[in-house]
Amino acid sequence: MEAIVQEPFITREECTVSVSHIRDALYVLNGKWKLPLIFTLTESSKRFGELQRVLDGITPKVLTKELKDLEMNGFVVRNVFPTTPVTVIYEVTPYAGTLRNVLNELREWGSQHREKIRNDMRKNVKTAVISE
Amino acid sequence: MEAIVQEPFITREECTVSVSHIRDALYVLNGKWKLPLIFTLTESSKRFGELQRVLDGITPKVLTKELKDLEMNGFVVRNVFPTTPVTVIYEVTPYAGTLRNVLNELREWGSQHREKIRNDMRKNVKTAVISE
Repeated sequence: MEAIVQEPFITREECTVSVSHIRDALYVLNGKWKLPLIFTLTESSKRFGELQRVLDGITPKVLTKELKDLEMNGFVVRNVFPTTPVTVIYEVTPYAGTLRNVLNELREWGSQHREKIRNDMRKNVKTAVISE
Repeated sequence: MEAIVQEPFITREECTVSVSHIRDALYVLNGKWKLPLIFTLTESSKRFGELQRVLDGITPKVLTKELKDLEMNGFVVRNVFPTTPVTVIYEVTPYAGTLRNVLNELREWGSQHREKIRNDMRKNVKTAVISE
């Protein structure tokens, strides 16, 4: 039985520890919006309306909640400027910068994954045409 | 007004494209289990029960669903061996290997984030003791 399972490169304990670190990261970065939000604010500080435009599809209610979560966890700061009407600008904290590598890797992977899906679809269309 | 906003390093269009790639990645890797699952299977192929042990807290129902999702999206293969009773072993596909950098970055970030939270808590305890 055990022979079928390929030899592990790390011990079970090390694997469990690594998995727990990945789970810790996903626990605080959960959902589909937090990482895109941090990424766009890392590029430049933005107002609420600008964030809504970049994160096409997010509702104001969800955006408000996600920004509050990120503020609470020390990734985002909400700056209120005493203009008339007041200007509220969201910016990332230096701590959000520690996510740079995670964001870059996700962006690169997402880009190549989209390309793969496109190629798979092209192949399927070709196969369908040939078999007709 | 615009002067308050820091100079962006990329154009708005480039930012939107990058955000869309990050969203593409999160779309297929959504939830708190898929990345830990892929990670643990990258270390070694496993049976259902072993996965449940490593992913402490996952229910059999959710694990079944997540494995099916990952199979459908080409990250995991379900191997059935004709033993009595049958042995089912889950293993990653070569395509899952393209997530290596994403997983490594998430693991490292999660590890340093846990350390940060611990330090923050220590500081808070110290401050509380001093102010008593």
